[in-house]
Amino acid sequence: MIPRGFLFSAVEANIKKPGRKDLALIFSESVANVAGVFTTNRIKAAPIILNMKRIRSNKGQAILVNSGNANACNGKRGIMDAIEMSNHVAKYLDIKPSLVYVSSTGVIGTPMPMERIRLKIPELVKRLGGSTVEEVAEAIMTTDKFSKVVKKGIKIKDKDCAIVGICKGAGMICPKMATMLCFIITDVNVDGDILDRELRMAVDNSFNKITVDGDMSTNDMVMIMANGRAENDIINKGSKYLSDFREVLLDVTYELSKMIVRDGEGATKVIEVEVRNAKTKNDAEKCAFAVANSNLVKTAIHGGDSNWGRIMSALGYSGANVNENEIDIMMGDILIVKNGVGTGNDEKANIYLKNKEIKLIIDLHKGSHSTRVLTCDLSEEYIRINASYRS
Amino acid sequence: MIPRGFLFSAVEANIKKPGRKDLALIFSESVANVAGVFTTNRIKAAPIILNMKRIRSNKGQAILVNSGNANACNGKRGIMDAIEMSNHVAKYLDIKPSLVYVSSTGVIGTPMPMERIRLKIPELVKRLGGSTVEEVAEAIMTTDKFSKVVKKGIKIKDKDCAIVGICKGAGMICPKMATMLCFIITDVNVDGDILDRELRMAVDNSFNKITVDGDMSTNDMVMIMANGRAENDIINKGSKYLSDFREVLLDVTYELSKMIVRDGEGATKVIEVEVRNAKTKNDAEKCAFAVANSNLVKTAIHGGDSNWGRIMSALGYSGANVNENEIDIMMGDILIVKNGVGTGNDEKANIYLKNKEIKLIIDLHKGSHSTRVLTCDLSEEYIRINASYRS
Repeated sequence: MIPRGFLFSAVEANIKKPGRKDLALIFSESVANVAGVFTTNRIKAAPIILNMKRIRSNKGQAILVNSGNANACNGKRGIMDAIEMSNHVAKYLDIKPSLVYVSSTGVIGTPMPMERIRLKIPELVKRLGGSTVEEVAEAIMTTDKFSKVVKKGIKIKDKDCAIVGICKGAGMICPKMATMLCFIITDVNVDGDILDRELRMAVDNSFNKITVDGDMSTNDMVMIMANGRAENDIINKGSKYLSDFREVLLDVTYELSKMIVRDGEGATKVIEVEVRNAKTKNDAEKCAFAVANSNLVKTAIHGGDSNWGRIMSALGYSGANVNENEIDIMMGDILIVKNGVGTGNDEKANIYLKNKEIKLIIDLHKGSHSTRVLTCDLSEEYIRINASYRS
Repeated sequence: MIPRGFLFSAVEANIKKPGRKDLALIFSESVANVAGVFTTNRIKAAPIILNMKRIRSNKGQAILVNSGNANACNGKRGIMDAIEMSNHVAKYLDIKPSLVYVSSTGVIGTPMPMERIRLKIPELVKRLGGSTVEEVAEAIMTTDKFSKVVKKGIKIKDKDCAIVGICKGAGMICPKMATMLCFIITDVNVDGDILDRELRMAVDNSFNKITVDGDMSTNDMVMIMANGRAENDIINKGSKYLSDFREVLLDVTYELSKMIVRDGEGATKVIEVEVRNAKTKNDAEKCAFAVANSNLVKTAIHGGDSNWGRIMSALGYSGANVNENEIDIMMGDILIVKNGVGTGNDEKANIYLKNKEIKLIIDLHKGSHSTRVLTCDLSEEYIRINASYRS
């Protein structure tokens, strides 16, 4: 289930080390509407700076991606290299350079090995159609343990269309640690402004709700290309299929974000932190992220220790409006804290924590705002002392 | 070198496990001026709530401390227990309960084993003078690998006085992970308001400049008792010895904070992050803490990898006003980044990073504000993958 009119290619350019595909191209046979969300880090990699300019046109036709080198903090040379990469691809594709986007991931501060990349671009273009989207997903991996691809069908009136996303996640999933790239392609015919708005909403409810986004890296980006080759009636503001499109797009980004969490370095469990009945949306998010980012909570869960005091402490320092005596906490179906005091269900909860998918539900009883955040546990030797601190 | 008029006692109360002293008492023979800094966590342990009320009098005579149980999140019972502990001590000391402060550290959410504590308090009081300050420092340890005591002499006119501090630090020193307690005693005669102000200043330049303070625990506290038994001319606003007192007090707190960093779990190196020439004080602190709290920076330093891109990335997401092209970075004496671009000194810097005490100096060239923050490296198996990511 691949959207119509997209071709893929991936080659070995030996950017960091030999023996793996590290340079890939996603190409739409016709000019597509594009939208993108880029890192909020003040220090942006060269390709990000380039893309942010080009995307103002809302048009694109190709994305060139490499792993092994982030092309960040390389000064003017970095910008020149990113431009040259896109120009080179444009030349061999015979399209305008402004339709080519560039994405890089890897080490910061090492100049791109341009001689090797230059050499490989003709081959990369020539082999378009010779690779699968899965091979592109593999080529963009860095510390990822598995490649990440999500494919969804969507029926728009009588047209069977597809939305396909690939991404690379972070080895370590804690804030400040992530570099994530995500590329989404679809043959759905969507208005450019709607595409932009819908992508931002999807990102906000997926990648921005895992604990990677707290501190974006220099290279983070999420891009979507919609080439309209399904020839459906355009999806615009009034379209009755807009909500379907929204839903499937969110499915794609949410599943990818869950894969990123599952691939957290050393992760053995996926943890969903749900905060209910906060006074404001902001309070709900502060609480959820404070708990999801607490290494003490994460090590306790890894160690199967229902040490809910660590959750209380995180809620306390979250900065949100919380009242100790109003807080209830559930681990799965087990009520472990009622009105801020332990219920004595610790042993039951310890057994629950042996599961691979853990739900923490925190009810603040302050208002009506809720949110969910995904994270993973922290394992490994380094964590051992904290996980066993209580027992 | 112990301040006049202070007595110590430490006993085994079997609060968490047998075979170690876990209940201690610091007693001043006369009523002392006291000052305290308490956690900013919204969820405060019972003893903290009690102390914050009592310290409004600026007077005190005894501090009762236990390890093994934090007496936090125990609802009304927690407060009742803290009050009972102080009342009990006051009764046996034959002083007013309002002069007794209580401090607890350990597990959250487990009620205090009051039957054992009640039983031990008479013995604790009876044995006053039978323990050393070092034994008190040992009794308050939790995951600390060594006890922390700093003793300094200070001459005020013709009087030889002393300032002695003890503290317990955090096993893990990253934000959200710390529980720190610190008790300082002195026989210097100091005005109560001045004592309060000077303590806050000292804490701000020591404990608040290590990466424990970003997120305070439910139990954090720093307290000073000054009993004036040196009978020096009182140190007040106009006193010519005020600056000496300030300096020695800061020495005590700074050395203790350095000990906390050195005792960071798995720490093999102490890292000082100095930010120079930021536009504002706030910007300097944002940058220093972003770098000091970056697990990626800390693992790179542990691995002896001068991966300065991680420092640049942290500066970028710090929220401070930084300009990539204006940033210089030094590792010790080695200039590794000039105007935002690598200088090619990576190999030299790798050798420097083999040292046990590491200095990172970041010059933003934006203004005139500087700051320093202490942290430690991150070691252990869990970190291995990131430390070797680059090589």
